[in-house]
Amino acid sequence: MIKKLRMGMIGGGEGSLIGPVHRMAARLDGMTVLVCGAFSSDPAISAATGAAEGLDSSRTYDTWQDMVVHEASLPEDIRPHFMSIVTPNHLHYAPAKMALEAGFHVVCDKPLCMSVAEALDLQETVERTGRLFCLTHNYTGYPMVKRAREMVMGGEIGAVRKIAVEYFQGWLSSLVETTGNRQAEWRSDPRKAGIAGAMADIGTHAFNLAEYISGVEVTELSADLGSVVPGRLLDDDGSVLLHFENGARGTLLASQVAIGEENNLSLRIYGEKGSITWRQMEPNSLTVLWPDRPVQVYRTGTAFAATGVAAHMHTRIPAGHPEGFIEAFANLYRNFSLHIIALSEGNERDPLADYPGIRDGVRGMKFLEAVVASSRDNSSKRAV
Amino acid sequence: MIKKLRMGMIGGGEGSLIGPVHRMAARLDGMTVLVCGAFSSDPAISAATGAAEGLDSSRTYDTWQDMVVHEASLPEDIRPHFMSIVTPNHLHYAPAKMALEAGFHVVCDKPLCMSVAEALDLQETVERTGRLFCLTHNYTGYPMVKRAREMVMGGEIGAVRKIAVEYFQGWLSSLVETTGNRQAEWRSDPRKAGIAGAMADIGTHAFNLAEYISGVEVTELSADLGSVVPGRLLDDDGSVLLHFENGARGTLLASQVAIGEENNLSLRIYGEKGSITWRQMEPNSLTVLWPDRPVQVYRTGTAFAATGVAAHMHTRIPAGHPEGFIEAFANLYRNFSLHIIALSEGNERDPLADYPGIRDGVRGMKFLEAVVASSRDNSSKRAV
Amino acid sequence: MIKKLRMGMIGGGEGSLIGPVHRMAARLDGMTVLVCGAFSSDPAISAATGAAEGLDSSRTYDTWQDMVVHEASLPEDIRPHFMSIVTPNHLHYAPAKMALEAGFHVVCDKPLCMSVAEALDLQETVERTGRLFCLTHNYTGYPMVKRAREMVMGGEIGAVRKIAVEYFQGWLSSLVETTGNRQAEWRSDPRKAGIAGAMADIGTHAFNLAEYISGVEVTELSADLGSVVPGRLLDDDGSVLLHFENGARGTLLASQVAIGEENNLSLRIYGEKGSITWRQMEPNSLTVLWPDRPVQVYRTGTAFAATGVAAHMHTRIPAGHPEGFIEAFANLYRNFSLHIIALSEGNERDPLADYPGIRDGVRGMKFLEAVVASSRDNSSKRAV
Amino acid sequence: MIKKLRMGMIGGGEGSLIGPVHRMAARLDGMTVLVCGAFSSDPAISAATGAAEGLDSSRTYDTWQDMVVHEASLPEDIRPHFMSIVTPNHLHYAPAKMALEAGFHVVCDKPLCMSVAEALDLQETVERTGRLFCLTHNYTGYPMVKRAREMVMGGEIGAVRKIAVEYFQGWLSSLVETTGNRQAEWRSDPRKAGIAGAMADIGTHAFNLAEYISGVEVTELSADLGSVVPGRLLDDDGSVLLHFENGARGTLLASQVAIGEENNLSLRIYGEKGSITWRQMEPNSLTVLWPDRPVQVYRTGTAFAATGVAAHMHTRIPAGHPEGFIEAFANLYRNFSLHIIALSEGNERDPLADYPGIRDGVRGMKFLEAVVASSRDNSSKRAV
Repeated sequence: MIKKLRMGMIGGGEGSLIGPVHRMAARLDGMTVLVCGAFSSDPAISAATGAAEGLDSSRTYDTWQDMVVHEASLPEDIRPHFMSIVTPNHLHYAPAKMALEAGFHVVCDKPLCMSVAEALDLQETVERTGRLFCLTHNYTGYPMVKRAREMVMGGEIGAVRKIAVEYFQGWLSSLVETTGNRQAEWRSDPRKAGIAGAMADIGTHAFNLAEYISGVEVTELSADLGSVVPGRLLDDDGSVLLHFENGARGTLLASQVAIGEENNLSLRIYGEKGSITWRQMEPNSLTVLWPDRPVQVYRTGTAFAATGVAAHMHTRIPAGHPEGFIEAFANLYRNFSLHIIALSEGNERDPLADYPGIRDGVRGMKFLEAVVASSRDNSSKRAV
Repeated sequence: MIKKLRMGMIGGGEGSLIGPVHRMAARLDGMTVLVCGAFSSDPAISAATGAAEGLDSSRTYDTWQDMVVHEASLPEDIRPHFMSIVTPNHLHYAPAKMALEAGFHVVCDKPLCMSVAEALDLQETVERTGRLFCLTHNYTGYPMVKRAREMVMGGEIGAVRKIAVEYFQGWLSSLVETTGNRQAEWRSDPRKAGIAGAMADIGTHAFNLAEYISGVEVTELSADLGSVVPGRLLDDDGSVLLHFENGARGTLLASQVAIGEENNLSLRIYGEKGSITWRQMEPNSLTVLWPDRPVQVYRTGTAFAATGVAAHMHTRIPAGHPEGFIEAFANLYRNFSLHIIALSEGNERDPLADYPGIRDGVRGMKFLEAVVASSRDNSSKRAV
Repeated sequence: MIKKLRMGMIGGGEGSLIGPVHRMAARLDGMTVLVCGAFSSDPAISAATGAAEGLDSSRTYDTWQDMVVHEASLPEDIRPHFMSIVTPNHLHYAPAKMALEAGFHVVCDKPLCMSVAEALDLQETVERTGRLFCLTHNYTGYPMVKRAREMVMGGEIGAVRKIAVEYFQGWLSSLVETTGNRQAEWRSDPRKAGIAGAMADIGTHAFNLAEYISGVEVTELSADLGSVVPGRLLDDDGSVLLHFENGARGTLLASQVAIGEENNLSLRIYGEKGSITWRQMEPNSLTVLWPDRPVQVYRTGTAFAATGVAAHMHTRIPAGHPEGFIEAFANLYRNFSLHIIALSEGNERDPLADYPGIRDGVRGMKFLEAVVASSRDNSSKRAV
Repeated sequence: MIKKLRMGMIGGGEGSLIGPVHRMAARLDGMTVLVCGAFSSDPAISAATGAAEGLDSSRTYDTWQDMVVHEASLPEDIRPHFMSIVTPNHLHYAPAKMALEAGFHVVCDKPLCMSVAEALDLQETVERTGRLFCLTHNYTGYPMVKRAREMVMGGEIGAVRKIAVEYFQGWLSSLVETTGNRQAEWRSDPRKAGIAGAMADIGTHAFNLAEYISGVEVTELSADLGSVVPGRLLDDDGSVLLHFENGARGTLLASQVAIGEENNLSLRIYGEKGSITWRQMEPNSLTVLWPDRPVQVYRTGTAFAATGVAAHMHTRIPAGHPEGFIEAFANLYRNFSLHIIALSEGNERDPLADYPGIRDGVRGMKFLEAVVASSRDNSSKRAV
């Protein structure tokens, strides 16, 4: 039986924002141990990060290629179970593909890659190798998101009619990419970020969340992207009209120039019978509106009878002890780890212990290409 | 000097929703007295309403035409100063025009009328007769809306970059127009409501609020209207991508099938320096976000130093004693009454004691025609 | 049948805070008309206020004694149905008693008077004369307060175990009574305010609300009063431990030096089965907590099935159109007016159309005397 | 240089609530590794917990006495740096004392022990041994609590006048201690919990938070404790009137029968110039009220210029990515770890990287004894 899962990391060196988050998330439940890393394209940074993490220097690498090759050659009880890829977008595809081919399961940051073509190729690779793949659309890990999905899937709010999702940040309200902000630099550089800026960085989160909770897919959209800050090379603001496969309509708003906004992701789904609202910045509440009953607020950690099994599976502490971003992120790592264990033991995984995967990555890339095309074409409708 | 303004009313008989609201709003400050009415196309209802309001039966009329003709013939110290028109949309244009021509000032419910052509004709009539015209886009009457406008106009948040306005209700989530709901009947009947449903009924409020607070006008839009409830003849849900004259972008979302929503009008404006958020259901707060300072919340009725002159002029009671919908509505009646008095005395009105007028009505009709056209044309861009 | 109730007013002249509130509240529903007034101890102010209100100068008086005597002598179809007393505390007892003896019904601001002895004498006068008496503990007029009481009385939350009521304001955080603030002057003057300051001015509101909603009476208390601002003659801050007749415990906190607080009255009642929370500054929500169900939020104006009859009777407009302080205050005037009409027609009043009366006034004075005594006696327990 | 701190644990076996929290908190930042444990008085449970944590069986003990003795005999590079005590209250004193005497630093859950006498003895032991002691009043670890303290200490709100702290839970609303709820069993058993129930379990948290943020100490109190649920042996509800050393007044309310409440700890401090409000259930906001400026809301993770150094030191991720209970708890472990490292290197610790210690434990026990005495004595005043 697997005691602790061994993890390698690609990217996430000093100065990284998301690397430490992945490491805290992986560490929280004590199921995972970091064993090796190629933390940076700068070998010195990679070595320093490995040392700070307490790694043996023999398992800190100058390049991810070296790491994948060498670690794959280690004995089974030493080599990592999975690689976690936390690099900028342009460095997702190649490492992910190589790691999969080398027999590693893969955790990868979002968006999946740079194009639909790359995405489909990765999907084929995952299917062919039989390796597991987790795309860190981490917002799906919140207990109340699980509850929301359970309610919608269970028909509690009736057929979905309307979805309003938005993700507003303000940190790109000025041209910070020219002032040494490394997070902004690569996100606003088409060579590293891809065809879209805000829409790729946060719009895909919103898109994924909407499809995940609602269970219906976008089929058509009209988009309007803007580069609001003069000199910016990619979109920093965008709005999209959505049509879903079941006839529902919706809107997706994403901005990184919504000045003063922190990380304001919210989702509302209106059904025939009721509606739900969830806001990431107060993640432990899920508000449900009904036409003829009082407003209901579901709360993380409250009585099982109230909150249901899916939320409870993803909750660590009693109600009123706020669980936050890291805990939600850790739920992806935990579910992914449980899946690896189940696979290694020949068991089925618990379907409620789900996590976003390669298919979500393909959807996201299709969404991005349609958004960019529609916006260039006078916001006219475009299939997804 | 005018002591109390005399008001006549067209529409607003028993069963009316908005008629009693206009009467409460007119009565609140004690500046206005109802003296005559043609409250319904049903003479019995008109008479009963007049009696309930304590009117002399000689001044309760079977038709609004009779009332305008007869009241205009009364001595100056008896006849109304203004007529208040609170009928369904198709009965705005003709009574308004006749009342203006007969020398009355006019208060009229929104949307202004049935077409841009009618709107322009009414605008010409207002200008030609020199009568005053108030269109009851009542949400502009809230103290914190005044504060918001003052801040944006004063440059406090910098150049406007992005506007997100939405207005969600849920009361049309089923086909209530077939179940005896009179409010739903006319609003969903193209002969009485006009070319649009939800977009006319509440979308125009949202549109007006956005232009009022931001001070910039929409020049171009892409729209997606839906008739979500089977059997409904007009749109009950719509989303619009907006471009503004100064280059700003925005979105306007309006729905009456957002099940469980009460009267959820909200507006966010993002500038270069800061942003504001106002929500009608908690109208006494105005939230301001800054990139490098704590969140600020302005509150109705707090110290003048904090809240400024425009809000104070529209506040009746100390902070923490909530002012609501009727008080905001009454601010339109009060400002309109003050304008009539100023005009009668040859004075200028206080520019801060403003109210929406004929120009807002024309804008609203242009917006509606553009929205309907864009939606029919695959959501492609359309000029406003 | 009575068409409109005629009202006389004692106090409420220029510079008054509460006078205009009473007049707006009385006017809102169009059931009441102001016919006479003795608005100030300064005849010039009284005359000016009467003129501004459009009263005939013959019915504006220099003293309330003159008014009561003269108006009582007028024909029945001219003289007021009731007198509204909106003076400082020391001028409640005598005018109320004289008005009752002269045959008028009485509306009186709170607290009732200056002592338990006065209160009991007024109670005897009310009972003897058969006149109606309304004490404007106006917070009981909110729809969600009616809903709260209905729920508690109906046993929905089970036996009451714990009540936490508080009323925090900040406007007396400095010695404003020496800077020309007329509201502060009399409230901090023992000759005009009585034995208590904040506890009389707002503590009695909190006390009344707790007993009204819970339906149980305080039997014992321990209090700690402070005069926080140097130079202040009465308490501006106080906290009270409460025991109720049914064994429940509670706390009542009242302060006018809670700097920055606007008018923060809130109440929580914990029962055996569930609990309720109501906050005056967001008065249209009533939050209900359960041990094993989602949080519920009742909302003013929502479906009758959700919100119940008592709230609906006190609601004027649809859900999401906020009703505020003036509307709640107006509910007292409306219920009082309906009672006068019912009495005049020999009918019973609707028990749900209730309003606070003389008995509430006696309770408030007993509370105040017990609080002051306990605080002087080292916070030891004292019967109420 | 210390790489990772080694931790032993006393208590926290299967079925423990707080044990896993301590372990997650210790693990989050990767500074600590669990090396040994005596997790339960039941050896089988202790062994199973150790195995689940991946400990070598040689370092899982049947009794804490065995562990302290044996681990103290291990070489310096193997034996733990500190012991973490997460047992019920009656098992704090003896293990803490023994661990200190054996040379270990100690983390201990709250309340410190069973009496002031025990507390003073532990204080003497800490001082004598020179070992570090952390009492897990974990709520002090939130970034916005750090900000609040920084503001009050820096004089931003002026001299403190009034403190209102409360801690409401509902989970003991019925006699769950007789239904197999292990958390309730020991907390309601005087032999294990001590002289107080709710007041010890959560009241001491509230007390500590009030003194920590305000910087002023309670000198006198009047209390009212109740055992609301029939059959309960200790208080489950209590309210306390407080006087502080600087003349400020306050109230402390604690209840575990506030049905429906989750973990509702909140604190308000009113100064001469402004006031602050913090609520644990929305821990990333700190609301500041001013008499003449808009409300301010400080937010975890926002610009350094806005939020200050103390909060930033205790924040892991950007604004709007909620940090929760575990992160706050982890801040205590991190600061304690940093102190151990500083001590080992002969450095001063950063005064902002503080954590609650032995002195807070003594204060808490004095508070408890005074509360129980006052409540027994008719709520009369009692010195602390």
